[in-house]
Formats: sequence, structure tokens, C-alpha cells
Amino acid sequence: MFKALEDAAAGTRTALAAALEQIPFNNEGLVPAIAQDMASREVLMLAWMNRDALERTLAEGYACYWSRSRQTLWRKGETSGHLQRLHELRLDCDGDAVLLLVEQTGPACHTNRPSCFYLLVEGNQVRVTSEPA
Amino acid sequence: MFKALEDAAAGTRTALAAALEQIPFNNEGLVPAIAQDMASREVLMLAWMNRDALERTLAEGYACYWSRSRQTLWRKGETSGHLQRLHELRLDCDGDAVLLLVEQTGPACHTNRPSCFYLLVEGNQVRVTSEPA
Repeated sequence: MFKALEDAAAGTRTALAAALEQIPFNNEGLVPAIAQDMASREVLMLAWMNRDALERTLAEGYACYWSRSRQTLWRKGETSGHLQRLHELRLDCDGDAVLLLVEQTGPACHTNRPSCFYLLVEGNQVRVTSEPA
Repeated sequence: MFKALEDAAAGTRTALAAALEQIPFNNEGLVPAIAQDMASREVLMLAWMNRDALERTLAEGYACYWSRSRQTLWRKGETSGHLQRLHELRLDCDGDAVLLLVEQTGPACHTNRPSCFYLLVEGNQVRVTSEPA
């Protein structure tokens, strides 16, 4: 199905159920999911989704991931309050990566930084680019 | 090392070599890498890097990935000419995801669309949002 859509004109539609069936989840049943801030366009984090997390995210309108460390569904912000309200969910050409455009409440990172990507490579060093809260 | 940097103030520096040593590559030796257009801030694609791809990207200043389908290093644009000139490379808090800010030549997607994320979920459908070239 993803292959068939490669040549499809803009505006072509297909059933979500068929797409979900054909997502090539990895051997742990996961795909990587990128969260991007819809206002600043900053990439906030990369996490993982299984089919259940993907369906809950769509059904509930808030990002839900699979926690690989805790081996459980992880409703982002459930304990911290740092919810990600879903604006848009996209799949890539192969169906093996997810992009979420979100409205982020509070910091996205567990270090209380706005984004998880605060380690910038500069020459032969890595520099921390934002303050932990 | 990534753990130790969680509480580090902005401006803290550490050696790149140490960071590269401690990236928790998965059991295939890979980490996911997100390419984002530095001008439009659009997320272009998600691909995979092994340590070699990461070091070449930094050394050469152009994105280099690991092709899981071809099991080989993949200098993005090597055959298509659709190079990604590296502007910035970041690691996330756990060191297990990479974010590249790039200057993209031509389309990023192999379908000749600007971005790989052209499949937008809308209700119970998926809609193709850009024209293949």
C-alpha cells in the first residue's frame, strides 16, 4: 500500500485501517515517532510507538508512546503534565516513521529543557545548548 | 556521560569522542537520524546511522546514513544529487537519536517529493499531501 501511494497524486486518499495494517513495525513492534512543535517548528523529541500507542494518539488527540525502558504505554505528560496535543499526524513514504505536529505544554524533555536535542556537536566537542529547569 | 549532562548548565562542553563511545546504538548498531530543513524547518526524513555514518557526516559535512535495505553506507544524494549539506548535528538527552539541520538540494524523498512525510492522517483516511515529481 505504501509502495502503491508513492506515485499517487496529491489529494489521493486511502483507508487509515489499511495503512495501520501495513506499517512495518520492527521486531519489537515499534516505529520511531518524531514530535515537532507546531508553532516554533522545533523538533522536540524522538520516541517510539507500537500500534496501540499510535491508535490511542489518534483517538485521544494527545501523544501516547511506548516506553521501552518501562515496557508500558506512556501517555506523554501523564505524570508531568507536559502533554502534547496532537495537531497533525503523518507517516513517511515507507510507513515506518511517524511525525507528530504538536502543541507542547511545558518542556518536552525529562530534563525540563524545551527540546531533547540540546547536545550540539561543535568541532571535537559537544556543547549543552539549553539550561535544565 | 549523557546521564551526567542532564543537569549540566548551558555552555557545558564535553569531548565528542567520549559521546560517540557512549551512544547506545541498537542491536543492529544503528540510531535513528532526523533530517530537518534549516530554512523551512520542515522535517524531511528519518533514516538510520551507524557510528561510521555519523563520523563521516561530521567529517564530510554532508549527511551519510546506513541503508538497512542495501546494508551499506549511503551517502545521501550520491546518485540522485539530492545532497544534504550539514549545518548542525545534535544528539538527544539519551544519545540515542540524532537531529541534522541540513540545507537540502532538491527533494529529500525518493519519490521526488520535498519531504518523506507526505501521508497525512485525516479521520479514518490517509491523504497524500504533495505531488510526486
